[in-house]
Amino acid sequence: MAKNLYSSRVNRVPKSFVREILKATEKPEIISFAGGLPNPNFFPVDDIMQATNKVLSSEGEKVLQYSTTEGYVPLREYIANRYYSDCGITADNIVITNGSQQALDLIAKVFLDVGDNVMLERPGYLGAIQSFSMYEPDFVTVGIQDDGIDLHELEKKINEFKPKLFYAVTNYHNPTGISYSNQNRTALSEIIRTSNTIMIDDNPYGELTFYDKPHVTMKKLLGAQCISLGSFSKIFAPAMRLGWVCADKEIIDKIITMKQASDLHTNYFSQRILYQYLMDSDIDRHINKIREEYKVRRDYMIEMIKEYIPSDIKYTEPDGGMFLWMELPSDIDVMKLFDIANKKNVAFVPGAPFYIGNEENPNLTLRLNYTNSELDDIRNGICSLGEAIASFRR
Amino acid sequence: MAKNLYSSRVNRVPKSFVREILKATEKPEIISFAGGLPNPNFFPVDDIMQATNKVLSSEGEKVLQYSTTEGYVPLREYIANRYYSDCGITADNIVITNGSQQALDLIAKVFLDVGDNVMLERPGYLGAIQSFSMYEPDFVTVGIQDDGIDLHELEKKINEFKPKLFYAVTNYHNPTGISYSNQNRTALSEIIRTSNTIMIDDNPYGELTFYDKPHVTMKKLLGAQCISLGSFSKIFAPAMRLGWVCADKEIIDKIITMKQASDLHTNYFSQRILYQYLMDSDIDRHINKIREEYKVRRDYMIEMIKEYIPSDIKYTEPDGGMFLWMELPSDIDVMKLFDIANKKNVAFVPGAPFYIGNEENPNLTLRLNYTNSELDDIRNGICSLGEAIASFRR
Repeated sequence: MAKNLYSSRVNRVPKSFVREILKATEKPEIISFAGGLPNPNFFPVDDIMQATNKVLSSEGEKVLQYSTTEGYVPLREYIANRYYSDCGITADNIVITNGSQQALDLIAKVFLDVGDNVMLERPGYLGAIQSFSMYEPDFVTVGIQDDGIDLHELEKKINEFKPKLFYAVTNYHNPTGISYSNQNRTALSEIIRTSNTIMIDDNPYGELTFYDKPHVTMKKLLGAQCISLGSFSKIFAPAMRLGWVCADKEIIDKIITMKQASDLHTNYFSQRILYQYLMDSDIDRHINKIREEYKVRRDYMIEMIKEYIPSDIKYTEPDGGMFLWMELPSDIDVMKLFDIANKKNVAFVPGAPFYIGNEENPNLTLRLNYTNSELDDIRNGICSLGEAIASFRR
Repeated sequence: MAKNLYSSRVNRVPKSFVREILKATEKPEIISFAGGLPNPNFFPVDDIMQATNKVLSSEGEKVLQYSTTEGYVPLREYIANRYYSDCGITADNIVITNGSQQALDLIAKVFLDVGDNVMLERPGYLGAIQSFSMYEPDFVTVGIQDDGIDLHELEKKINEFKPKLFYAVTNYHNPTGISYSNQNRTALSEIIRTSNTIMIDDNPYGELTFYDKPHVTMKKLLGAQCISLGSFSKIFAPAMRLGWVCADKEIIDKIITMKQASDLHTNYFSQRILYQYLMDSDIDRHINKIREEYKVRRDYMIEMIKEYIPSDIKYTEPDGGMFLWMELPSDIDVMKLFDIANKKNVAFVPGAPFYIGNEENPNLTLRLNYTNSELDDIRNGICSLGEAIASFRR
């Protein structure tokens, strides 16, 4: 096949580093903190079976047929009421997507021409880097701090680069686990409002909070200038690929056109099962259970880090979500650490894929997932990681 | 919102005409030959319920978790064996997509830069026109004849425009219902082979044959130079959005990268239900039932056309699939006919959206679907269509 048949984007999209890493860690004896998987022990299997039988036996022909591009109206109404009751949002502002990952693709289709500027967090969600890369923009990055985005750097770069889009994960950020404080959000919204930039607030982890103090949403602060993304992957079932995009009606109309051209509509059978589940089961009770279980794991991982990891190594202590982030001193090369740890049967994601290109990547960071391991594995895995780190200092 | 924020593709993707038409025909009293819907009376609802309960009760945690981008290996093996046993194809050549519509998006991502040439049939599948339009190629079209593609025009245009891709529906074509003869396929493959063009053979209707004489596949004739698409929407359940792309391994690798960036993976729960169904139920018997029922409807629609439609109006007599195609004499404007027919409570799709731009569109064609109506509706609908046509000749 003649190589020149391929599009120029083929060389722009980073091959998933994590995908390669996960392959390297497939041996069954490995303790993996590498993935971003919810804990399958808390999937509501029985309730899903009941909901499925109900929709199939009452409306089998309907729930198996083609459906509308926007998604099932009552599900979109549910989302508008649950998540956006304070923002004047209705079902007309919501489109159901194949997980929130697809929302990134659709937004890129609506906004990005080759060479447009897109602003990302540094480090930022690697799936967003991959998705936007398909549309060959130029990336601009802004540093993440303990309480949110670096406002000084953000303002400077918005003025200099006038990015079309600013993508952020403001709640329990992937990969660092930090959350934007209310103060940071307010200041951020003031900067965005004076610009022509649209903010994309991706919120897959918002429900996984360990403390009862919800932040003000960027959608409320920014209105039409914010596109808000959400997902049922972390609170229901990731296999069903059910997420959504919430935006101004003018933008939503263009997203619908792109969605229809991309795949007609999201799996309607799964939309109907989810909606039946939401009607018949107590999702808040279910989410509380997940929160409790994840908090136990986060607390235990931090306890183990304190016990087994040298004290000069910094790490975040997330108030929710699925990840914590480590910064290593300069004597430890993270890729070498990955290899040594792998031999000791423990895996993590080195920080590189969360940065744009090598110049940004200090090669001294790593991400740990705590939701998909049980306590014994957390103890043994962090202990092994500690040994791997110690091997640099003998 | 500043208009100049949108990408240039926003103005290139045609808004779905059919979508607008379907909206215009939503009144319950309408007899619609407009959609492209399978008949829901033949969805295997009970078997799907059984398969779902089986996968949930035996492997609930697994079938609800994130999965691989390529799709479930046993399902990919099944597809390789059922559809490509004579082409040296394995599971490694198959990726499961959100319906075959998504395969078009992924292929466009792998191959198309702005301004590249893409060759389509004239008329051609409107969903392909929409999908490719997002990548802003220049379209070249080649006429469809009773026995396949116009070989003379094809050869001339391949030489002149050197298109990267040639997209075709060789079995029970959408919109015309025709099939490429074996002779046409062979001659077509000889022209393609001497070119640098990759053929995309989209085959959603291949299983819906009314006669027992399968054609040689373009994949067999062209090998790596053909990308073959398939779908379970017409033989299982469209709501589940399960299709596939089959291609050379080098192309598949790039499609996987694009798929991961686009939406991580296809709904895994539905993949597992489909595979369980394929293992436990007799899909061939199920398909035979659909074939019989659709053939009855096709035969009856043709009988009614002979009874109610003036004999100077030409129409195709498809050997399978879901549609037939009408060509009107020049005294009948199809958009006016649509309005008159709509008032008489019968709907069809005017031919325009199956053409690129207005210059190609003779405005004298229309598509009729016969699979989604029962016999009484076919009689009454064609009778009303005949009255609408007659109103031009009073």
